Amino acid sequence: MAKVLSSKEENYAQWYNDLVLKSGLAENSAVRGCMVIKPYGFAIWEKMKAELDRMFKETGHENAYFPLFIPKSFFSREADHVEGFAKECAVVTHYRLKNDEEKGGIMVDPEAKLEEELIIRPTSETIIWNTYKNWIQSYRDLPILVNQWANVVRWEMRTRLFLRTSEFLWQEGHTAHATEQEAIDETMQMVRVYADFAERFLGIPVIAGYKTESEKFAGAIYTLTIEALMQDGKALQAGTSHFLGQNFARAFDVQFTSREGILEHVWATSWGMTTRMIGALVMAHSDNNGLVLPPRVAPIQVVIVPIYKGSDEFPAIAEAARKLRDELSGLGISVKFDDRDTHKPGWKFAEYELKGVPVRLALGPRDIENGTVELARRDTMEKKVLPREGIAPRILDLLEEIQEAIYGKALKFRNENTHRVDTWEELIDVLDNRGGFALAHWDGTNESEEKISETKATIRCLPLHAEEEPGKCIVSGKPSKGRVVIAKAY
Amino acid sequence: MAKVLSSKEENYAQWYNDLVLKSGLAENSAVRGCMVIKPYGFAIWEKMKAELDRMFKETGHENAYFPLFIPKSFFSREADHVEGFAKECAVVTHYRLKNDEEKGGIMVDPEAKLEEELIIRPTSETIIWNTYKNWIQSYRDLPILVNQWANVVRWEMRTRLFLRTSEFLWQEGHTAHATEQEAIDETMQMVRVYADFAERFLGIPVIAGYKTESEKFAGAIYTLTIEALMQDGKALQAGTSHFLGQNFARAFDVQFTSREGILEHVWATSWGMTTRMIGALVMAHSDNNGLVLPPRVAPIQVVIVPIYKGSDEFPAIAEAARKLRDELSGLGISVKFDDRDTHKPGWKFAEYELKGVPVRLALGPRDIENGTVELARRDTMEKKVLPREGIAPRILDLLEEIQEAIYGKALKFRNENTHRVDTWEELIDVLDNRGGFALAHWDGTNESEEKISETKATIRCLPLHAEEEPGKCIVSGKPSKGRVVIAKAY
Repeated sequence: MAKVLSSKEENYAQWYNDLVLKSGLAENSAVRGCMVIKPYGFAIWEKMKAELDRMFKETGHENAYFPLFIPKSFFSREADHVEGFAKECAVVTHYRLKNDEEKGGIMVDPEAKLEEELIIRPTSETIIWNTYKNWIQSYRDLPILVNQWANVVRWEMRTRLFLRTSEFLWQEGHTAHATEQEAIDETMQMVRVYADFAERFLGIPVIAGYKTESEKFAGAIYTLTIEALMQDGKALQAGTSHFLGQNFARAFDVQFTSREGILEHVWATSWGMTTRMIGALVMAHSDNNGLVLPPRVAPIQVVIVPIYKGSDEFPAIAEAARKLRDELSGLGISVKFDDRDTHKPGWKFAEYELKGVPVRLALGPRDIENGTVELARRDTMEKKVLPREGIAPRILDLLEEIQEAIYGKALKFRNENTHRVDTWEELIDVLDNRGGFALAHWDGTNESEEKISETKATIRCLPLHAEEEPGKCIVSGKPSKGRVVIAKAY
Repeated sequence: MAKVLSSKEENYAQWYNDLVLKSGLAENSAVRGCMVIKPYGFAIWEKMKAELDRMFKETGHENAYFPLFIPKSFFSREADHVEGFAKECAVVTHYRLKNDEEKGGIMVDPEAKLEEELIIRPTSETIIWNTYKNWIQSYRDLPILVNQWANVVRWEMRTRLFLRTSEFLWQEGHTAHATEQEAIDETMQMVRVYADFAERFLGIPVIAGYKTESEKFAGAIYTLTIEALMQDGKALQAGTSHFLGQNFARAFDVQFTSREGILEHVWATSWGMTTRMIGALVMAHSDNNGLVLPPRVAPIQVVIVPIYKGSDEFPAIAEAARKLRDELSGLGISVKFDDRDTHKPGWKFAEYELKGVPVRLALGPRDIENGTVELARRDTMEKKVLPREGIAPRILDLLEEIQEAIYGKALKFRNENTHRVDTWEELIDVLDNRGGFALAHWDGTNESEEKISETKATIRCLPLHAEEEPGKCIVSGKPSKGRVVIAKAY
């Protein structure tokens, strides 16, 4: 069959875009920079949401919902915050349309101008901390452990499906604490939740670490991040957790009476993960035949395709297929029997390869006769004929095995593409010729970081689990205590 | 203990507002007309969402996500639609803020004006049908059965928590069909799903029926609705399902090649239910002590409160309580053991009454001694001492019984407050003195409907299951085939 995708070796960006479109994940909308998440893409997001939400609740968080709109004046309260977000805000200025008497059609009613403009939330710290002010009086009201699932808008000039869109979906956690240490612990706990989710659920190995001062969240004391490596050797920031100190509590005057009776400002964190992770999932595992989905996040884990010539062969195969489907489904496997007579088996095989369904089963007349099933693994493209007897529990085990294998492959790829560099020339060689993560010594100064940025690569993070290894900054030659991760990034 | 709520008999509106605030469901935000849905309120919404989503998927629907923004020009395409929504639209005109050099602070950057203004979706028919145009070529692409969970904005001047807010959360289904009959069947199916959900899950009896021409959705051929009766005798529209005919397919030029090879316009439906239902839930069942939640939608179904004097009594009680909690939770019951030592039992009793927890268990030293538990039902306020032995399955049954009882009580209330009226005077008597649903004959004309509207009541619907009963319109005396439902409404 004709290739429907560009090859990722020839044109990675084109391959990615083709893949997202053709596998039915998402498409561009009529609104510049905004995407439509199609049912198959949204089903993946629903799986991610369900798992993350479970993890948040397990760690004591509750969900709530705050307004889409933020009064303009709220932004100015935290100086760094407004600086970071002002240039990419969608602004509501009017609240009514009317008939255009001159030109026909409709126009914005100039008489319905808002007294104060409203910003579509790019993130909700300001509106939430303005609300928390009323929720918090005493240490007894703390901690507040709240998460919100929402859409946000950050106006983008150059957009790419999932990776960078003007509107995206995400969750944003906003917690309030009585002590600095508790907030620091929360910040760390949530970056660990993200790392665990990325590795265990999405099969994407990540490096957790601190962002540099210049890359931290606008309004944070520091930002923790998880960084993943894509197959083209570029990094992708996959989730961030911010220690906000007392910055927002000061900006919105949120104080509490401590156990000792002293009035203090509240300590804060925020943390978020977005639909961008669908892009990471696509780019981390897929190949030139289509998506490769880890079983835990796959909307369809097993598909059964019937193989038959005349319509008289169909009933016996369909009966066997339905029995098999029910058996698998009884084990909690999400399984689809594709009994459409409008498409041929070859077409269906290609379609489910494109959609990344982890296991494909084919059932033909010979299988019915011999008591067998043909099984194809999407990740390795291996095919085997197996005995029908006992196949359901075997597939349950296989799904676990595939989950592990996909993670293992991505980890191997990352290890092979992580390079220790000890000189500026070695860094340039990695960036220009090899790609991947460069581990290098950095003196911690802004100047050296800027010099690195001139290469178009950035310091992705100061890893949490770095070995202590004294060395010399590859830019300045000054002393450094450990290596940082440098890479070009999405 | 002091009453924290106004009495609903004295001031129903105040009682409702107090109740929503004090039970921690929601509050007003700093943004005019927008609310904050607090964790307890959001937990109820999550339960509603999960059940509705299950029902939608069971009937073959998938979720997707479309942009928040709708280009202004899209609105003008369907004449009735723009007429219906233009007056309550939030409009984005700019995409950037900048520092205000004169006054300080930040201002909208006049150079970042959008070429075409964007409307925050008040409903998504236009952006979705513009998308469907690219999804549909042949009858093989149909039906499309898509739902979206989203926030929408309809600018409101007078708002009330949950019942009428400028931003609210909802789901909107948008389906596309090859035949008129299929779309008609879908419209009917979904109003039945809503009615089933309201009655079986929320315990709210509803009347399903057709809206009149003047009350139908802007852009629909006809609208089906479910109408519920609140305890103050006013009606509340609780969900609507619209047959859109080919209106949006024509407006956005969506055609398909039929099985017979003919190019035809696609048939459409849309249907929605909103966070307003939380308001309905509150108003349908609650009393002067607080919320009364049907067990299926209650975030906490059973609460266990320990009763003890000295702290030496606590360990044995806590151990028994935890064992009981685990037993209940093992049966799938959502149960909370409130072991806080910061609040007294009496305070906790009042708190869980206010929050509408269906079953409260109290465990004291005497219970441990005697092998008993004290059980209190929120809906009837009955208290009983029961043997500890076998109590868990008994509570499982009791939760079902409470669910039924709450529905039964609401149904009895509705029946007692539904009045057959045969003259104008009888209608006025019901509206002025008795409240509730008036069942009256109507001749089907706009004139008679307007006359009825002058009373501040409206025709809520033409019931689906009305008996055929020839009669005379209470306004004009002209012939009518059956009775319609008239009431004052939220």
